[in-house]
Amino acid sequence: MGKLEAYDKSLDYSYAPGLFPATECLKNAKDRCLRLLLSSHAEKSEGAAALRQASEAAGIRVEIADRALERISKKENCFAAMVYKKAEGVFADGAPHIVLHHPSDSGNMGTILRTALGFGLTNIAIIRPAVDSDDPRVTRASMGAAFSLNVRHFDTFEQYRAEFPDRQLFPFMLTGAVPLEQAAGSVTGEYSLIFGNEASGLPDEFASCGTSTLIPHSGKIDSLNLAIAAGIGMYAFTRANVK
Amino acid sequence: MGKLEAYDKSLDYSYAPGLFPATECLKNAKDRCLRLLLSSHAEKSEGAAALRQASEAAGIRVEIADRALERISKKENCFAAMVYKKAEGVFADGAPHIVLHHPSDSGNMGTILRTALGFGLTNIAIIRPAVDSDDPRVTRASMGAAFSLNVRHFDTFEQYRAEFPDRQLFPFMLTGAVPLEQAAGSVTGEYSLIFGNEASGLPDEFASCGTSTLIPHSGKIDSLNLAIAAGIGMYAFTRANVK
Repeated sequence: MGKLEAYDKSLDYSYAPGLFPATECLKNAKDRCLRLLLSSHAEKSEGAAALRQASEAAGIRVEIADRALERISKKENCFAAMVYKKAEGVFADGAPHIVLHHPSDSGNMGTILRTALGFGLTNIAIIRPAVDSDDPRVTRASMGAAFSLNVRHFDTFEQYRAEFPDRQLFPFMLTGAVPLEQAAGSVTGEYSLIFGNEASGLPDEFASCGTSTLIPHSGKIDSLNLAIAAGIGMYAFTRANVK
Repeated sequence: MGKLEAYDKSLDYSYAPGLFPATECLKNAKDRCLRLLLSSHAEKSEGAAALRQASEAAGIRVEIADRALERISKKENCFAAMVYKKAEGVFADGAPHIVLHHPSDSGNMGTILRTALGFGLTNIAIIRPAVDSDDPRVTRASMGAAFSLNVRHFDTFEQYRAEFPDRQLFPFMLTGAVPLEQAAGSVTGEYSLIFGNEASGLPDEFASCGTSTLIPHSGKIDSLNLAIAAGIGMYAFTRANVK
């Protein structure tokens, strides 16, 4: 790793910007932490001091790097960032999956990751093309939740299915055949909740790959926002299937 | 109304930016529409032509106004905007209310308004200080949902309560005493769902003003995003109380 560059998805490292996300990165993905960047303005903050101390205790290099922080965060103020190595997650056996098919908005993805962690859904499959889950804007919106999740990427949905052939699939669709509550009540084993792209939803063929699931809403709106739909879906499935 | 200014909350009119929100404004709040602004680039778009025609049929002045659109929308591309008169809504008798206490983020408010409309919750009380619900960023995030809602503003929560003393109140709190499903099942009459500020939530004293409601989530996150919490709350209450 030479001079730190503005983030680009081709890099094998990224930045967790902000004190809270950087702290989450250190707490939950210590082995991947490469370097802590601090702004000289952050020096007086208690949070920054604690993060600095914890980083040093973990053997992570700390540097005051105002210019790198500016370059990284563009115009947003950013007092700290953890530089970390990207890595594919490993799925836990038997756990539910959240599958995001072609998600395109970094804010939505961050919010969905944070919500997923909140409901204990820690295995996240992302089907490309997709917004980069290591984009610092995602990390910021997720409040660093991704560092406590197992996030994996697949080039196609078929690739995902081939690896996990025996799961109950619940694609969320505006044309869903089964209302959410009923779908959530029909879980008998391992399951995956599948959410489509913000603008286009899931392609029609997903209707036949599992239990197409509908969140009933009035015709006064075209659709719920993706992160809202995912949040409601995750809530309903985890409530109905509390162990 | 003289020269159109960049939006400021002190103005008595605002802008619904974008073809979809502008069309929603015309469809659902025709009496408040003052003028349709179109970009010269929009002329070829079918949606713009339809909106132009509908506006003219409704007797609303249409003008090509590239510079006004630039001024209004700052750097975002914007091909159309409806100029409309702001107005306080009127609440429907007997219907549930959504109460937003000191909301501060325009994107969240827009998403919440859109979700509320999706669940048929059309009466929205906003307790100030609050982000301006007529801010074009709210309208854009709501996809124009506000034009189908009754949005009212109150200077204090006490003012709201004084006008509506006999409702079941459900403040959503991280320290909520009653889990969401149970709270949603306890509705016996008119009710209000109350959501606090993004960063600080509801003040502690709300715990004693009704059934403080908890959306159970893991300790791995501090809280759900406000719009997600509101979405889950609205879903659960409307499902449990379908008429």
